Amino acid sequence: MATQFNGTTSDKFPIPKTMKAWVLGDPDNLSLVYKQVEMPNKAEVLVRIDAVAICATDLDVISHGPPAMIEGGLPFNKNFTPGHEYMGTVVALGPAVDEFQIGDRVTVDIHSGCGQCKRCRMGMYTSCHNYGLNYGDVNKGHRANGFTTDGGFKQYAVNNINTLIKVPDDMSDEEATLVVTAGTTMYGLTELGGLIAGESVVVIGPGPIGLLGVAVAKALGAGPVILIGTRDSRLEIGKKLGADYTLNIKNETDIVKAVKDIVGTKGTDYVVECAGTEQALNDAIMMTNRGGKICLAAFPHKPISINIPHMVINNIYMYGIRGEGKSATHRAMEFMKQKRFDASLVHTHTFNLDELPKALKYARERIDNAIKIVIKPWS
Amino acid sequence: MATQFNGTTSDKFPIPKTMKAWVLGDPDNLSLVYKQVEMPNKAEVLVRIDAVAICATDLDVISHGPPAMIEGGLPFNKNFTPGHEYMGTVVALGPAVDEFQIGDRVTVDIHSGCGQCKRCRMGMYTSCHNYGLNYGDVNKGHRANGFTTDGGFKQYAVNNINTLIKVPDDMSDEEATLVVTAGTTMYGLTELGGLIAGESVVVIGPGPIGLLGVAVAKALGAGPVILIGTRDSRLEIGKKLGADYTLNIKNETDIVKAVKDIVGTKGTDYVVECAGTEQALNDAIMMTNRGGKICLAAFPHKPISINIPHMVINNIYMYGIRGEGKSATHRAMEFMKQKRFDASLVHTHTFNLDELPKALKYARERIDNAIKIVIKPWS
Amino acid sequence: MATQFNGTTSDKFPIPKTMKAWVLGDPDNLSLVYKQVEMPNKAEVLVRIDAVAICATDLDVISHGPPAMIEGGLPFNKNFTPGHEYMGTVVALGPAVDEFQIGDRVTVDIHSGCGQCKRCRMGMYTSCHNYGLNYGDVNKGHRANGFTTDGGFKQYAVNNINTLIKVPDDMSDEEATLVVTAGTTMYGLTELGGLIAGESVVVIGPGPIGLLGVAVAKALGAGPVILIGTRDSRLEIGKKLGADYTLNIKNETDIVKAVKDIVGTKGTDYVVECAGTEQALNDAIMMTNRGGKICLAAFPHKPISINIPHMVINNIYMYGIRGEGKSATHRAMEFMKQKRFDASLVHTHTFNLDELPKALKYARERIDNAIKIVIKPWS
Amino acid sequence: MATQFNGTTSDKFPIPKTMKAWVLGDPDNLSLVYKQVEMPNKAEVLVRIDAVAICATDLDVISHGPPAMIEGGLPFNKNFTPGHEYMGTVVALGPAVDEFQIGDRVTVDIHSGCGQCKRCRMGMYTSCHNYGLNYGDVNKGHRANGFTTDGGFKQYAVNNINTLIKVPDDMSDEEATLVVTAGTTMYGLTELGGLIAGESVVVIGPGPIGLLGVAVAKALGAGPVILIGTRDSRLEIGKKLGADYTLNIKNETDIVKAVKDIVGTKGTDYVVECAGTEQALNDAIMMTNRGGKICLAAFPHKPISINIPHMVINNIYMYGIRGEGKSATHRAMEFMKQKRFDASLVHTHTFNLDELPKALKYARERIDNAIKIVIKPWS
Repeated sequence: MATQFNGTTSDKFPIPKTMKAWVLGDPDNLSLVYKQVEMPNKAEVLVRIDAVAICATDLDVISHGPPAMIEGGLPFNKNFTPGHEYMGTVVALGPAVDEFQIGDRVTVDIHSGCGQCKRCRMGMYTSCHNYGLNYGDVNKGHRANGFTTDGGFKQYAVNNINTLIKVPDDMSDEEATLVVTAGTTMYGLTELGGLIAGESVVVIGPGPIGLLGVAVAKALGAGPVILIGTRDSRLEIGKKLGADYTLNIKNETDIVKAVKDIVGTKGTDYVVECAGTEQALNDAIMMTNRGGKICLAAFPHKPISINIPHMVINNIYMYGIRGEGKSATHRAMEFMKQKRFDASLVHTHTFNLDELPKALKYARERIDNAIKIVIKPWS
Repeated sequence: MATQFNGTTSDKFPIPKTMKAWVLGDPDNLSLVYKQVEMPNKAEVLVRIDAVAICATDLDVISHGPPAMIEGGLPFNKNFTPGHEYMGTVVALGPAVDEFQIGDRVTVDIHSGCGQCKRCRMGMYTSCHNYGLNYGDVNKGHRANGFTTDGGFKQYAVNNINTLIKVPDDMSDEEATLVVTAGTTMYGLTELGGLIAGESVVVIGPGPIGLLGVAVAKALGAGPVILIGTRDSRLEIGKKLGADYTLNIKNETDIVKAVKDIVGTKGTDYVVECAGTEQALNDAIMMTNRGGKICLAAFPHKPISINIPHMVINNIYMYGIRGEGKSATHRAMEFMKQKRFDASLVHTHTFNLDELPKALKYARERIDNAIKIVIKPWS
Repeated sequence: MATQFNGTTSDKFPIPKTMKAWVLGDPDNLSLVYKQVEMPNKAEVLVRIDAVAICATDLDVISHGPPAMIEGGLPFNKNFTPGHEYMGTVVALGPAVDEFQIGDRVTVDIHSGCGQCKRCRMGMYTSCHNYGLNYGDVNKGHRANGFTTDGGFKQYAVNNINTLIKVPDDMSDEEATLVVTAGTTMYGLTELGGLIAGESVVVIGPGPIGLLGVAVAKALGAGPVILIGTRDSRLEIGKKLGADYTLNIKNETDIVKAVKDIVGTKGTDYVVECAGTEQALNDAIMMTNRGGKICLAAFPHKPISINIPHMVINNIYMYGIRGEGKSATHRAMEFMKQKRFDASLVHTHTFNLDELPKALKYARERIDNAIKIVIKPWS
Repeated sequence: MATQFNGTTSDKFPIPKTMKAWVLGDPDNLSLVYKQVEMPNKAEVLVRIDAVAICATDLDVISHGPPAMIEGGLPFNKNFTPGHEYMGTVVALGPAVDEFQIGDRVTVDIHSGCGQCKRCRMGMYTSCHNYGLNYGDVNKGHRANGFTTDGGFKQYAVNNINTLIKVPDDMSDEEATLVVTAGTTMYGLTELGGLIAGESVVVIGPGPIGLLGVAVAKALGAGPVILIGTRDSRLEIGKKLGADYTLNIKNETDIVKAVKDIVGTKGTDYVVECAGTEQALNDAIMMTNRGGKICLAAFPHKPISINIPHMVINNIYMYGIRGEGKSATHRAMEFMKQKRFDASLVHTHTFNLDELPKALKYARERIDNAIKIVIKPWS
């Protein structure tokens, strides 16, 4: 292995031969094992994982498999390490890397496209047409950390430099894990055109993506930003992150009217839909103004009944968004670096690597009002 | 009236005081009357209508009201003249008009925006936020010929110069009425990005918009272009208009697979959906590749069940399109002028103005395989 | 006149028949006269001018004529009131206006397009093809306040509602006059794509547009933002407005190298060029990275020698920008409303209407380090 | 070597160990040698070169070095094979390739980006920030065939599959070499927005790029298309390729006026500038309408004096274009495949590989009215 590596390491960061890693077997069956530490290829680095957050999609991956693979009819993905919201320290450089130095703190994108399909060639690497083809006879080199290839519930990870974003010195490890969450909603707003200063934005669903969606929309100058949810505690966090108005759907007889009372009778310019329910999506359609745009950042698990006539008659655009494309994490990081919003407000709990099963339980059952849970692999 | 007009007329085109016009009363209740001929204001011209085609939406307008008004909860629009696909000859110029000459043959866009809402200011005049506000205390000046304001089932019409496209000498009156139909699908392809040369396009539903959608997509260089329908006679016309492949859904057990057999297993880049059914839209979603785009150029009359998970997981964009925005009729006209396709292939029948009720019956019941029916108000 | 008006007024804001106004005769020949107060048409309001700022272009308009008219070979524009950076209070509504109320504080865009040319139809109203055609036989209705039609060095002005932006209660009159300056640079950044969070932006030339360019770029999340100039006092203001770095060109032997020392050897992503000199534009070209973009927000008065080879070989895009298009003032206002930057830092002096000649002298000669001078017509 | 290859070959296309290749030494010093045939890596194929055309830039590369390298201060590139407009037959597949089959006829793009810089990640691979870094300690993997890495004046070439476009059976080898030329101008029109149907386009300079620029603009529906040049024989070819009008600048006293006489006094919407002279670029600026766009597809060898004031006052955009980015060759190929224009009209001469020096002389001196000269390495 070492003879093939030919890259750079440093005595300051000695690299062990093996590391602790959680490995997924059958659904919901995770084991903590010792795995070999791989070394980086040409345009890759080795990252020592200092923190990794739990995303709702991790729960899906562990119980049902990665959405795109399952939906594509592929078998349950097993014998790999899940976890995709991680950050850490660069400890080895592949042979073609001078963009980073050993010791740099970095947080990571999920996707590294194949580089050879039409979408990758367009810059749409999260929509890679060779998604999941990273093994076997036709290894196209696509990687989605913690989905189709090894992820972050372990101590070291190899990453393509495309997926790395530098972390400023004054940002905590925990906050840095949230960049990809903020980047996901930034990607949505980027696809909607990105010019939302002075435009009205409604965010439905105050989970981590929705809450950071409020923060990102506000940082971009949207006004007003309205957050809709069912729990006052989360709506409160939304206010701290930049929501000009919050609406608890439990207190509203007509949520569409409630939005229009704020933004005017024509309706809102944009909706970022993060609830993934039939009701929420239809509300989104009805509150969007003619020529407005909806980003679908969440989805139900089966077909739902949608008011297509209203959408067409009103020239509404609907964007099914996945991942953190178009370098959106870089934009999100910049706002976090400039302290435009405090992403750490959504971080509620911290566990060590051995405690992953307990951490997943907290996330799944929202124990103790858990929102974002972070694992520290070295504590 | 004449003293306010202050524009230009010509002895070559004497303008009568009154004209023949069909006026809509209660639903399905049309009367042929004599109406006063209005004269054009500042940026308007008077058009002598030489031909007007019947669109499926005219049938809706006459029986149920304009979709956007009805859907917006407005009362049935009556006491006006429907018909929006018309062309004719400029016979009077408003005071600020030097873009056109008397005697110019022109075909017309449907929409003239208010010019004062945010969408008009963005150039999205078909999505005018003051749609329908052309009367009463808050006359914003929006006009949608044959929908919210007087249309073309008559002998003369005033039109904003924004809505006019010159007709070349060698194009027949009948063919010129089809420009707005071609423009509608051109608008859809424009919104999808417009760069479809070498990309695969599936058109579902070989009505007039779908058939000209095939023609426009091919003119723009799409390849392959696949047309899906249920009637072989229409699919044949589609082939003449540029479809590389046609698929009769009645002969296919799996239309999604049939498309993928042609374009490859990843699916098609674009779908222009002109059928407006639940099945068609879900087929569209399933046959579109990751990162691909769907234009909804038709719509059902009620909510339908949609495979939203597949759309989101595959980063699919869906555009609810209405009208002929972004000057798309100009682009469509250029291709027709250059004879890239023969739009007159969809023209099947011609009637005179008195025969409108019979013509509408042919259109509604597709008598004698009627596709596009044209009325000649002066024959 | 009143019989034609047919709009709305209020006793709270009585409107006099005449007002004080500066009128331009021959070049540099301004007279203070009493003019009739005009009343608004259909989509217009009457604004009582509460404050108007002096822009460097006003000096050009007064001495040489409006740049676009002069450059187009038109005669010197006289017998009108210059001044285009004004704000005030709505005191009368035209017949079709319900977007504003009497008493609303508003600031104004310069341009109201003709609404009937191809650029207006695309939403590019500042590039109206009928620029200046607001008189005579072919009045197309284009208006550019203080350039081609009456401007703001007076007490009342009629404005199309397209050109109005509401001013929040807690913003001073003086600050509100600066929105169009910020909007000009926002337009430039909008044309460059608008997604500059995390991208490097260099602004050359710390005049009012350059200084607010720094502020807007930073508000949008650019990083780093570098300001280049020759006066330390202005560079200091730039720092307060958000510049991460300032470079005094007088202290640098190689300004291109100095920029690359900050942003890296590939060069900067964007340059906003506000100096308008040959040296500055060539520096801009040399410091922009491959595939980067340059906005020309200023211009010299004659042709200059440009390094075109470097531009083409490096796939650099150059945008000649004029005005405050694409509703950019709305985006700029939102950031100012949210107090992302303190535009009033560039406001240095205030005079009353009678003192306009003195104020112009201060502006022209930069007396007392004048940057932005504001006239208060009612003080 | 063979043991590392691990891809696929076929007995139908036996691959020799060595091949004939021209190698560049010092400037203008080409030698015909025997070189080893390399085998393809992961996402690459081996192409047997069946035809390669000579581009004016090849003459630059051979005499002065690749423009971007020379302009970047790098030493003259030697000890490699120039030539970038080649096509051929796939004879070996790298290990990850199933997009192509052995025996496929393909034509090639010049650029394969590094895949790890910001421009590549955006899909702008021809503006790769690691241009030329394909050797030494920091091999980033960028390739520009015939510029920075081995090109086509030889018998076999390894190519990344990103750079391959399939050639239809009924297209000759000679015509297929012209796809990259057509793709270059298609890239320009793509960057200008791509929606040029019904818009006026002026092409200045009827070299191969200009002539195919006319063809591509017309295929996209532009109208009118005007070609400006100095040689009637070339203008005639332009007419056959789709120019609606040609103007011989030698016969015109005022070329800007001559264009406006055709397109109207406002000027043209787009100019594709392929002459690269000071006069041509200034003419382009003066004939472009307000808000119009200019593509710089050629460039002079030193700075030139440019009418920047006119450009800024008229909101004109100028795009320095290099290469064949945004998959433009695919769009160009589709139009050629559909026989929208006959690119072979610009092909004038054919030579065999041994005759390269003579062929270059013909190209350089335009002997016998040479436009495009093709080399057939196997004849």
